[in-house]
Amino acid sequence: MLKLSRVLPLTSTSRHRLLEALSPRKVEVGDCLRDRPEFTSSSAGISTAANSYAAKGYTSDRVFAPYTVYKGKAAFSLSPCLPTFTKLESGSVVVDRRGTMMMNFMHSIGERKYDWEKRQRFALSATEVGSLITMGPQDSCEFFHDPSMLSSNAGQVRKSLSIKPNSNGYFVSLTVVNNLLNTKDQFSVPITAAEFAVMKTACSFALPHIMGWDQITKQQSRGTAGLQPKSGSQVLDLEWEK
Amino acid sequence: MLKLSRVLPLTSTSRHRLLEALSPRKVEVGDCLRDRPEFTSSSAGISTAANSYAAKGYTSDRVFAPYTVYKGKAAFSLSPCLPTFTKLESGSVVVDRRGTMMMNFMHSIGERKYDWEKRQRFALSATEVGSLITMGPQDSCEFFHDPSMLSSNAGQVRKSLSIKPNSNGYFVSLTVVNNLLNTKDQFSVPITAAEFAVMKTACSFALPHIMGWDQITKQQSRGTAGLQPKSGSQVLDLEWEK
Amino acid sequence: MLKLSRVLPLTSTSRHRLLEALSPRKVEVGDCLRDRPEFTSSSAGISTAANSYAAKGYTSDRVFAPYTVYKGKAAFSLSPCLPTFTKLESGSVVVDRRGTMMMNFMHSIGERKYDWEKRQRFALSATEVGSLITMGPQDSCEFFHDPSMLSSNAGQVRKSLSIKPNSNGYFVSLTVVNNLLNTKDQFSVPITAAEFAVMKTACSFALPHIMGWDQITKQQSRGTAGLQPKSGSQVLDLEWEK
Amino acid sequence: MLKLSRVLPLTSTSRHRLLEALSPRKVEVGDCLRDRPEFTSSSAGISTAANSYAAKGYTSDRVFAPYTVYKGKAAFSLSPCLPTFTKLESGSVVVDRRGTMMMNFMHSIGERKYDWEKRQRFALSATEVGSLITMGPQDSCEFFHDPSMLSSNAGQVRKSLSIKPNSNGYFVSLTVVNNLLNTKDQFSVPITAAEFAVMKTACSFALPHIMGWDQITKQQSRGTAGLQPKSGSQVLDLEWEK
Repeated sequence: MLKLSRVLPLTSTSRHRLLEALSPRKVEVGDCLRDRPEFTSSSAGISTAANSYAAKGYTSDRVFAPYTVYKGKAAFSLSPCLPTFTKLESGSVVVDRRGTMMMNFMHSIGERKYDWEKRQRFALSATEVGSLITMGPQDSCEFFHDPSMLSSNAGQVRKSLSIKPNSNGYFVSLTVVNNLLNTKDQFSVPITAAEFAVMKTACSFALPHIMGWDQITKQQSRGTAGLQPKSGSQVLDLEWEK
Repeated sequence: MLKLSRVLPLTSTSRHRLLEALSPRKVEVGDCLRDRPEFTSSSAGISTAANSYAAKGYTSDRVFAPYTVYKGKAAFSLSPCLPTFTKLESGSVVVDRRGTMMMNFMHSIGERKYDWEKRQRFALSATEVGSLITMGPQDSCEFFHDPSMLSSNAGQVRKSLSIKPNSNGYFVSLTVVNNLLNTKDQFSVPITAAEFAVMKTACSFALPHIMGWDQITKQQSRGTAGLQPKSGSQVLDLEWEK
Repeated sequence: MLKLSRVLPLTSTSRHRLLEALSPRKVEVGDCLRDRPEFTSSSAGISTAANSYAAKGYTSDRVFAPYTVYKGKAAFSLSPCLPTFTKLESGSVVVDRRGTMMMNFMHSIGERKYDWEKRQRFALSATEVGSLITMGPQDSCEFFHDPSMLSSNAGQVRKSLSIKPNSNGYFVSLTVVNNLLNTKDQFSVPITAAEFAVMKTACSFALPHIMGWDQITKQQSRGTAGLQPKSGSQVLDLEWEK
Repeated sequence: MLKLSRVLPLTSTSRHRLLEALSPRKVEVGDCLRDRPEFTSSSAGISTAANSYAAKGYTSDRVFAPYTVYKGKAAFSLSPCLPTFTKLESGSVVVDRRGTMMMNFMHSIGERKYDWEKRQRFALSATEVGSLITMGPQDSCEFFHDPSMLSSNAGQVRKSLSIKPNSNGYFVSLTVVNNLLNTKDQFSVPITAAEFAVMKTACSFALPHIMGWDQITKQQSRGTAGLQPKSGSQVLDLEWEK
């Protein structure tokens, strides 16, 4: 069954380096977009999609720095996926694909080994990130996704992510029911309050970026549009300008 | 009455892309400045202003990434509008027009259709953003604007924006009374606590930018002024330097 | 007595532009460093310092974007002053003069007029900013400065800034007792909770910049030092490296 | 015993400059990586490591801006250490050594003098920073490190950092027990609530940087990858893309 597995460190708070054991087969965890070809799943339901993507090759110079929580039975990583933009004929640039916070869940398959091949993904929207970052110590949240919602397979795959308080922190759990493959996959990762604090702070930092607002606020430093002397006719109130 | 309408998606949390249906007539939502000429309103009271602006053409390469909340009866978008700057003879650069957080409200006119042409705008000042980002779960706020306050039409148009708590989140409502056109326009959009959290986090991110402080803090990376060795005479306390 | 005064707008929340009346004599408010020569004070106690500085001329392209609160009897502005750095022989760059949050207080001298010439300054240190940004609704704080602390005039000038809660927000008050000039100057500006929220959010944004930490975190994007492949000998734990 | 000591100022809130006394022997406090050769410790247990590093010389143009709290018996500084990255054959860039928040503790050895040579370091991981930034006024935390955890000397050196509330703020204490040298070193620095607020705000700012997320969100401004028009085949849901 298990063709490929991956050695990952059980990080403790006192170790600041990835174990060297990782190096030979270093693979990006928590990446937004894709895997190496040899890692693509051969599961019937998604092979076409994955293969069509793999054929495009890899963007060079992509930076990967997921925040990963490794626990006894499972692990998950968290990483921002930036939006993509399209340039209109008018010269304006608009958001094409919205950014998300991508989570990858993996089962433990031995000491410090997690099953990267069978990982499951869950992409948090900006509003779902809003839920997460406002959670108090006793709050919980649950999100439901259907990755094929707009296709003929709508309803065949159901994903739910829940974050629920326990005595020390939270349980972060993902359930994926796939009627196409007749499978049900469950992950549950207990996290400490400190680990959740990192998630909240990092998500708060990332939120404006996945919304694309950092591109708006960067405009002035790119060009000088905002620094030109005003002309006399610009005295209109912004609220009049329709 | 309705010459133009716009197809917009009722986004759900599990969809991360704008519907393709949007592409043919893609229009910036939540932009600070202007519309395409063909979209300018022909309403008597504001035609001159809108036309004079339209005549200037469009700045190219502007980035649009509004945060939009679509609900059953109405929708609104939120987007930062950066300040503009003027260079003085001394070489100093000062804020000319202050930045705002721009809100655009639209009525629903059918399934996933919102009336972009009849939208109403409300530009939140830095201090109004300060009100918004400090609101607790039971707090409410209300702002009143008169877009023609300093003109001969003062008092003819009154706008009020209110944010009031409901059981799940907030009602965001805009009322525009226009005595010049003898109209009264009302929008009310219920938002969840998560959507409000996105608004607060995004506004907190944007606030220093609409204040122009990001331009102050960027100065050192532009030039080397801050990195030059100090001269011996710079031992003055800052508080002495008038 | 009053040789120079300055016209400043009593901003309301619905006005997003500085009044045009400001343009003819536009002067930077809340600047870190200096005034135009014609604005330097002739007060005996500080003339040398101010003049020696004025003689150096003005740095061009400085950006000014203070957050200013104008009220009936007085006004104050708030603006970040970045640290300056010195390059050591080793090539390392260290903080030379620490950054501050600079406040300028001005008395009202008529409708929408504030006495810029007789303004008083107060430069908040990073730790004082820490006090400000953690203040709850019922908290107050008070800071005492002696601008000539290390000179022969130590104790001759005492400045105290206090922020105290009132029913709607806070009173921000500055008292300057100058024994050299035999004067006592007092300013008190009532601010709303929203205005204080802007101050807190803007100060939280600015704090890492006045500490110089933005220069640390920018290092990787300047050079490629952080992106080079590691050499085999860099496996030392950071805590061993003395 | 004491071959080298260092003069450091007892900063008060009203002084915004480092004392000039510092200049002759200016040394970076709170640096991530290394000291000048003449400052390397000759303690038996760590000489090799320190020397091997010193032999590499110094990276030029490194910026140092630690936040330092000087108190009567001891002082500590806090400064972010950025992660390092490695480029894989695929062109992807991954985190090599994780970033930390580095603390340096020094004993007082006279008026405004702190023993830089005998300082002890403690490198907070991202998750430990998460603990720190969520601490409430009555909370405490304690972290345990073993710098030689993965070596044959595991267990010989134990470090513990604790932050515990007192009446005005917190005690920040470090204990280092070194069985190789048969020494026990203790530092305890009382800090005010304002100083802790600076630490929390600065750590919240730095956290995404020590995680390397600033490099992810910077990607779009480096290249144009994110701004290219989408191709028709990119309609895959992110959650399908394994």
